[in-house]
Amino acid sequence: MRLRHKPWAKEKIESYPQYVIGNPKQYYGKWCTLFDNGFPVHIEVGTGKGRFITEMAKANPEINYIGIELQESVIVAALDRLIDAELPNVKLINTNGEDLRKFFAKSDVERVYLNFSDPWPKKRHEKRRLTFESFIQVYEDVLVNGGEIHFKTDNRGLFEYSLMSFSKYGLLLTYVSLDLHNSECEGNIMTEYEEKFSAKGHPIYRCEVKYQNKLD
Amino acid sequence: MRLRHKPWAKEKIESYPQYVIGNPKQYYGKWCTLFDNGFPVHIEVGTGKGRFITEMAKANPEINYIGIELQESVIVAALDRLIDAELPNVKLINTNGEDLRKFFAKSDVERVYLNFSDPWPKKRHEKRRLTFESFIQVYEDVLVNGGEIHFKTDNRGLFEYSLMSFSKYGLLLTYVSLDLHNSECEGNIMTEYEEKFSAKGHPIYRCEVKYQNKLD
Repeated sequence: MRLRHKPWAKEKIESYPQYVIGNPKQYYGKWCTLFDNGFPVHIEVGTGKGRFITEMAKANPEINYIGIELQESVIVAALDRLIDAELPNVKLINTNGEDLRKFFAKSDVERVYLNFSDPWPKKRHEKRRLTFESFIQVYEDVLVNGGEIHFKTDNRGLFEYSLMSFSKYGLLLTYVSLDLHNSECEGNIMTEYEEKFSAKGHPIYRCEVKYQNKLD
Repeated sequence: MRLRHKPWAKEKIESYPQYVIGNPKQYYGKWCTLFDNGFPVHIEVGTGKGRFITEMAKANPEINYIGIELQESVIVAALDRLIDAELPNVKLINTNGEDLRKFFAKSDVERVYLNFSDPWPKKRHEKRRLTFESFIQVYEDVLVNGGEIHFKTDNRGLFEYSLMSFSKYGLLLTYVSLDLHNSECEGNIMTEYEEKFSAKGHPIYRCEVKYQNKLD
């Protein structure tokens, strides 16, 4: 995504702590106290302008959503959506996906969404892909046993890589579509990027994988 | 594939026992005695008109190939190729994929090829798909430890199904291409069907999976 510098972004983010959580460490192991409703927490790593997570939160009031986004100039667009929508079950954290373990204890999260993550196509940047082994380990460290990753992308190379990376890690592939918009998939909520890209007729790839209980 | 009845096919097959093995059970556990060269055996289940296996045999003289094909009216076309090519390292068996265990002992085979298998799209025909669990078990029963399945198809539904079926069985996905003819994949040998289909611009899906050593 092309970023425009927004010098006022930081200040705006800080003035809405009810939406963008200022000190997420305080909820480590006790996110239930933030939402106070006993519903499970689903997170989106790289939430961008927030359309996906906001629409998901509207459609699924019995789930709590947290969008993780590093770029201040992007997360402010997601913040605007939250201000408009006034939803009790969606929050944002302005941080890096690598930091998840600082904010979430094991089992704090039930599902991880990855949508149109940066493909980092060069082999030397493999470690930056959000489906690289070290990230899959991070997700496992914050997910419940049997937790899931739901992943979609338009990038063929990233999808091929990710299927192999998930398999190597021992995740169970429970759903895969190689052309999501020509598949039976009820309730798909499109990201901003997905809508633009799919309008050109290119396929969207999507899969769901599940962590399997390991033998101790 | 549309089949034309060829009443003379059976007789022709029987008159070339040096190419179409009449009694494959006799080589159970000792296929090395047939080829007499110590090279590994790769089989193609559903070999059709035999272009793939014949070209592979030409390109890889250090591998022994066996094509399995049930339809007499189809395998005669493969037989014609073998008669023309006069290759020492390729044979045919006129039988069903389900019967592999009758002819091959554990470790007789190093690799299984599945090319453009019948997709059997109806859910009630799932058990007939060559990537259904029971077939994956059959392949395991004849393959060496760490043996591989190399699979390609133009059928999106079958490929999606197969990726999930392989994952559920615990196979390791070591290669995947969602558009083979626009990927880096040296030495791809096209089947008759593949050439026709890909000329229309549709993607060819391909993957390699590997059996992992199980704990006893």
